[in-house]
Amino acid sequence: MFTSACTVAGGQHSHYLSSYCVGNLCSHRRNFPIMISSISKIRSHSFTVNRNSVAAAAAVSSSSSTRNTNNSINDGSSSFTWDDVFQISESRHVSSDLGGFFQKINLCNRGWDRRADFIPFVIEDQIVGYIHNGFLNHLSKFKDVFTCIKDNTYGSQSGHVTLQSALKTPEYRTEALENVVKCLGEEVIPGIRNEVLTYQNNGPLFPVTSSYGQRTYFSLERAAAPYFGIKAYGVHMNGYVERDGQKYLWIGKRSETKPTYPGMLDHLVAGGLPHGISCGENLVKECEEEAGIPNSISSRAIPVGAVSYMDIDGYRFKRDVLFCYDLKLPESFIPSNQDGEVGSFKLLPITLVADAIRSTQFFKANCNLVIIDFLFRHGYIKPEYLGYLKLLQSLRSGDCS
Amino acid sequence: MFTSACTVAGGQHSHYLSSYCVGNLCSHRRNFPIMISSISKIRSHSFTVNRNSVAAAAAVSSSSSTRNTNNSINDGSSSFTWDDVFQISESRHVSSDLGGFFQKINLCNRGWDRRADFIPFVIEDQIVGYIHNGFLNHLSKFKDVFTCIKDNTYGSQSGHVTLQSALKTPEYRTEALENVVKCLGEEVIPGIRNEVLTYQNNGPLFPVTSSYGQRTYFSLERAAAPYFGIKAYGVHMNGYVERDGQKYLWIGKRSETKPTYPGMLDHLVAGGLPHGISCGENLVKECEEEAGIPNSISSRAIPVGAVSYMDIDGYRFKRDVLFCYDLKLPESFIPSNQDGEVGSFKLLPITLVADAIRSTQFFKANCNLVIIDFLFRHGYIKPEYLGYLKLLQSLRSGDCS
Repeated sequence: MFTSACTVAGGQHSHYLSSYCVGNLCSHRRNFPIMISSISKIRSHSFTVNRNSVAAAAAVSSSSSTRNTNNSINDGSSSFTWDDVFQISESRHVSSDLGGFFQKINLCNRGWDRRADFIPFVIEDQIVGYIHNGFLNHLSKFKDVFTCIKDNTYGSQSGHVTLQSALKTPEYRTEALENVVKCLGEEVIPGIRNEVLTYQNNGPLFPVTSSYGQRTYFSLERAAAPYFGIKAYGVHMNGYVERDGQKYLWIGKRSETKPTYPGMLDHLVAGGLPHGISCGENLVKECEEEAGIPNSISSRAIPVGAVSYMDIDGYRFKRDVLFCYDLKLPESFIPSNQDGEVGSFKLLPITLVADAIRSTQFFKANCNLVIIDFLFRHGYIKPEYLGYLKLLQSLRSGDCS
Repeated sequence: MFTSACTVAGGQHSHYLSSYCVGNLCSHRRNFPIMISSISKIRSHSFTVNRNSVAAAAAVSSSSSTRNTNNSINDGSSSFTWDDVFQISESRHVSSDLGGFFQKINLCNRGWDRRADFIPFVIEDQIVGYIHNGFLNHLSKFKDVFTCIKDNTYGSQSGHVTLQSALKTPEYRTEALENVVKCLGEEVIPGIRNEVLTYQNNGPLFPVTSSYGQRTYFSLERAAAPYFGIKAYGVHMNGYVERDGQKYLWIGKRSETKPTYPGMLDHLVAGGLPHGISCGENLVKECEEEAGIPNSISSRAIPVGAVSYMDIDGYRFKRDVLFCYDLKLPESFIPSNQDGEVGSFKLLPITLVADAIRSTQFFKANCNLVIIDFLFRHGYIKPEYLGYLKLLQSLRSGDCS
């Protein structure tokens, strides 16, 4: 086992190249043909290998040159390190016990029993969101923006909320809501200040629509979306490498300074879908920013479907749809974060990723869904496993429209 | 363009190897490296190529040595030939107009408005099926088998049907239902005679259960399943070849003597899932029987998810779930039907298959769903196409459990 620093397009990166073997395979080193300029550091992984494992897996990592150059990232906000990830007991096959996967899907779909606390937010006769009764109290002072109508037209005994009729155009509505969000501020909508500070990367305006591809009624700041129960769309990409028929996923560990989910495991590339950009264009942009993947490679990413969830947490009602992409990467490619949002990347055997999802909460919650979807589509979860169809369906527990 | 006869494992097969080109690509022949022993026949395909097409596609076909050795299969029961398939206007990309796909999905999901004509069929407090009021009249004479209970426990004002309490075991129930089906015969349950005649291939017993993997209450003959609204499970496999980044699907044309859907286009391998065999085992069995795919190759097939539909047609309520598989085949592999159920096979560019689905009704209806699912998972249908999420969801319009 050895570790080295290598030069790849875009700068100097330290990375790890290691393999672990059992039985007769020990004599056969399985290294990725990445460019290695010098060997700098040796590191051992204490994998626990199941009795039936015929392990021939590699873990290659790349950390950003601008931050977190150490392998162990633990600045206090992160409760685990890469070492903790490597110490997860990994099986050769994805376990037939799907319980851990169901658990992670449930974590993205909390609070359905509190659904009645929300009333429909309606624009031009279309439900575009859901607003909590308690949050509505905050909105009641903006009488020139919102109006409450006591009827049962949209399936709620409590009526529905809409915008004042004077706000006829998307521009008027966007401006009015922007003012409301600013007035309410960080105290009522936590995260709003951070979003504004890093507007370009974190705070784009989200389109407000009844369903994807339909008319956009106005735009709303990202952090405010769940308080209005607006549907939010995103792109998530599984970047993988295939070698000897085995698949490996590039996994990021979020920067410890990220305002949301610091230090957690994440996809190689993922991002919200702002107003005015297509899924494909957004993915190419995120590929460049988050992982330094040039257009010549990212253009090979393929859309493979979508997952959805509905999560109620306090006043927030998240109704997210994630468009899933796969990108098969060259074995020689090493990602390099450009925007400071990722601490480091590692290339992990898919079976280790699956076990991390099942047995830990290391992954940012919604990534679990997209990776489980990958496990389905690539044959790692089999119809013979009890709960196969239920798990498959639960990947679209939200309104996937 | 040329056609030849070649020897492959299992016997002598005539097949076609052809390519069509436009523009500058004409000088570059794109042939599959299959074993060719002699050139026997020249055939031209009158493809209509769209203006933007950069066509470089190949169509390789294999016909069973036991039947339909001619390319044009038209014995009267089939309303189209392979030539008709080749004359479909083919685009380089799958069209962004998803209308034709929606239409095919709707053809698998008819009659939802007649749902109220059916009442629940309940065993041990679990709904296992739905029976039409009219069909129930036929069952009313079997008073030692069925009983009708007028209540609203299972969501129907008309009550529910169950089995007499004396039928306690799966064996008693299976035997009782077998007798009922035999007594009703071909007149009430068309197809039952054919099923019995070709029992081994077409008439296995289907498990009666509330959902997949749950307890089997009894078994029922395949042809009778939709008359009792029993959920039926099947395996469908997309067998494909990849060359220069382009994908080609092996498509079968059903034997003209098949009692169901004679002469229609079909998957390389597909079959119902009888009682007592797992999806994976069944797939391997069907691979051998339907396409002569040896275990050494079929074991590489991967499960990739499931589609479902609910179709009401007269007294029949089909509630089908199809487990989808992908098998990437070697370019040299030529399928060879073993059980006489397939007339011939051809390897078609995926874009041609997509256009055939959109613009014709050549495919057996439920195959459309599984191929559309393939188009999604392999990136041919993109989020930018209007209706993407709706189409994706509609692939599981039935109770997928």
